[in-house]
Amino acid sequence: VTTSGASAAAIEKGNYRHFMQKEIFEQPVVVAQTLRSYIRQLERQIALPQIDFDLSNINRVTIVACGTSYYAGMVAKYWFEQFARVPVDIDVASEFRYREPVLEKGGLALFISQSGETADTLAALRHCKEEGQTIAVVVNVPTSSMAREADLLLPTHAGPEIGVASTKAFTCQLAVLAALAAHLAVSRGRMDADEEASVVDHLLQAPAALNAALAHDEEIAAMAHLVSPARDVLYLGRGPDYPLALEGALKLKEISYIHAEGYASGEMKHGPIALIDEAVPVIVLAPSGPLFEKTVSNMQEVRARGGKVVLISDAAGIAEAGEGCMATIEMPRVHPLIAPLVYAVPVQLLAYHVAVAKGTDVDQPRNLAKSVTVE
Amino acid sequence: VTTSGASAAAIEKGNYRHFMQKEIFEQPVVVAQTLRSYIRQLERQIALPQIDFDLSNINRVTIVACGTSYYAGMVAKYWFEQFARVPVDIDVASEFRYREPVLEKGGLALFISQSGETADTLAALRHCKEEGQTIAVVVNVPTSSMAREADLLLPTHAGPEIGVASTKAFTCQLAVLAALAAHLAVSRGRMDADEEASVVDHLLQAPAALNAALAHDEEIAAMAHLVSPARDVLYLGRGPDYPLALEGALKLKEISYIHAEGYASGEMKHGPIALIDEAVPVIVLAPSGPLFEKTVSNMQEVRARGGKVVLISDAAGIAEAGEGCMATIEMPRVHPLIAPLVYAVPVQLLAYHVAVAKGTDVDQPRNLAKSVTVE
Repeated sequence: VTTSGASAAAIEKGNYRHFMQKEIFEQPVVVAQTLRSYIRQLERQIALPQIDFDLSNINRVTIVACGTSYYAGMVAKYWFEQFARVPVDIDVASEFRYREPVLEKGGLALFISQSGETADTLAALRHCKEEGQTIAVVVNVPTSSMAREADLLLPTHAGPEIGVASTKAFTCQLAVLAALAAHLAVSRGRMDADEEASVVDHLLQAPAALNAALAHDEEIAAMAHLVSPARDVLYLGRGPDYPLALEGALKLKEISYIHAEGYASGEMKHGPIALIDEAVPVIVLAPSGPLFEKTVSNMQEVRARGGKVVLISDAAGIAEAGEGCMATIEMPRVHPLIAPLVYAVPVQLLAYHVAVAKGTDVDQPRNLAKSVTVE
Repeated sequence: VTTSGASAAAIEKGNYRHFMQKEIFEQPVVVAQTLRSYIRQLERQIALPQIDFDLSNINRVTIVACGTSYYAGMVAKYWFEQFARVPVDIDVASEFRYREPVLEKGGLALFISQSGETADTLAALRHCKEEGQTIAVVVNVPTSSMAREADLLLPTHAGPEIGVASTKAFTCQLAVLAALAAHLAVSRGRMDADEEASVVDHLLQAPAALNAALAHDEEIAAMAHLVSPARDVLYLGRGPDYPLALEGALKLKEISYIHAEGYASGEMKHGPIALIDEAVPVIVLAPSGPLFEKTVSNMQEVRARGGKVVLISDAAGIAEAGEGCMATIEMPRVHPLIAPLVYAVPVQLLAYHVAVAKGTDVDQPRNLAKSVTVE
């Protein structure tokens, strides 16, 4: 067996203890290299691969994915609707396949998968193709089945992801989806050249913001002991931070076996708040911005019932609402467009350090496979 | 203070230990009385209240609700798409309000709320009205704000619901939504008179099927001790049983404070299966039918990893897959259209008996209010 230098280097851990840790720290670099292929930096424009159909005619987007890729799709739904004003339907692949979805003519069906081989997602892709949808895929393996069967291939350039719990593939998916949302908005006449240039500027700030987020690694490691004894954890967020809450919970489930659950902040009082006591830490994702006050108000309801809160926000948010929290994690203040990329870092690091504290097998968690190629 | 005889009777527990228990057992009667106002029995037709617009022109349905009502809406999405072939967008109210949803002309916006006063849902209704959507509401209080502001009022006739955890309002919502789905299908030329008559027949069998489900009360009470020591529980289902899994988990959360979570069966292997060990009971909702084999295959993955399973299915399903389960609960074999109503009963009874076994306050669970009239 001969292994090329490049791929050997890519599958070594280097100075890191686990592949997952290495992949978390690679994010500034791989997000930057992913963005490079979707941005013309001098022109301050989004650039998508050449395609032989007109994106401006797209009247509906259907997003299908599984697990972490599904949460990237949930973030994209917010962006597509907000920027391009195109309605988005989203579903997990195993549900989509069997629910007789209504697919209208002129629709774009978008599939997201690190491996490009996820069985349920691939079956959903083939169904949509038969139904005459235009097929776009966001995959990390450009030679995969999904890549071959797509009309529009949107590769992430995350490099090989070895840790079973996806990290860098997720943030690279978000980078591609943000570029696609902006491009759709421009194609549909919903975003002018100045706005496009501004979006490009914000996206280009993402790698530096990811670095700033990673600088809190030691602080997060030091507070992992506050979460590691818990059997149950809740994550709360609103808007694009709601899928981040789901992703944070999934990461913790996957590698620490703590039963973490993500919830839309506003749904807490419709049931789950009954769970709250001092044994259930609540992790709140709340960047400054229009949704901040609402989320903090839900956080205060949790605190009023004895709940212990970890607040992840920026300096302004922590200054306003951090008092009385069990812990706070400070993120750089960033544009709402790149906030989901940046807030992915602390939830990844927290899951990682909690798992290390518990002594679980971070890179090969029990019961899980890297790519789910069976139904 | 004078209380009328009727309302005094309605708020007494009679021979029941808790209001929730009484309300669970009222379901055959209140579902029958709800259906009566949506069905012309002799003509075997669905009958909706008179309205001054043409439902056949509806090109899209947007469903907005919170908590248990949201799960009723998720079931309805399957029905609207399958029967009426109209695309459905659904969201929890607290998210819908702030995500700049795209609302196209000619859309029906449907709001579901027991009280008709839920703050986030009411705000979403007003937003949709401003955006020119036709407003339909499914509410249990016909004098509520939502009822007054609707174009199409679809009342449930569940009677006053006192238990904080919603039970009979949920199944009555499902009855109304099934009738609405069939009516939409007829209006759009997707269902002929014979099919409509057949749907009516199935709906009219629901009360008897609910009685058959309730007959398993003692058996479920006897097995509650298998679940009550658990700190964590998973509920699995596919298709219309996926929202039922979410509802089952919510009921258990609300009144027993066990951290239960509902999952689409096919998503298990994308993360949550890492949680599975013998301390986490897994409750599987799998009526016989086209999705049965797929769900059972996910159930076997759980069992292969040491998970303890409670299978809720019909006699045929239990005969095929019940062996080796920790427990089984047998439901009557029913048409897929009424299965969600029937399968609501065992998840309600299980939550109820587990809470009783744990000694929690069933009718007034900690931290929760009956109607959430604040954001």
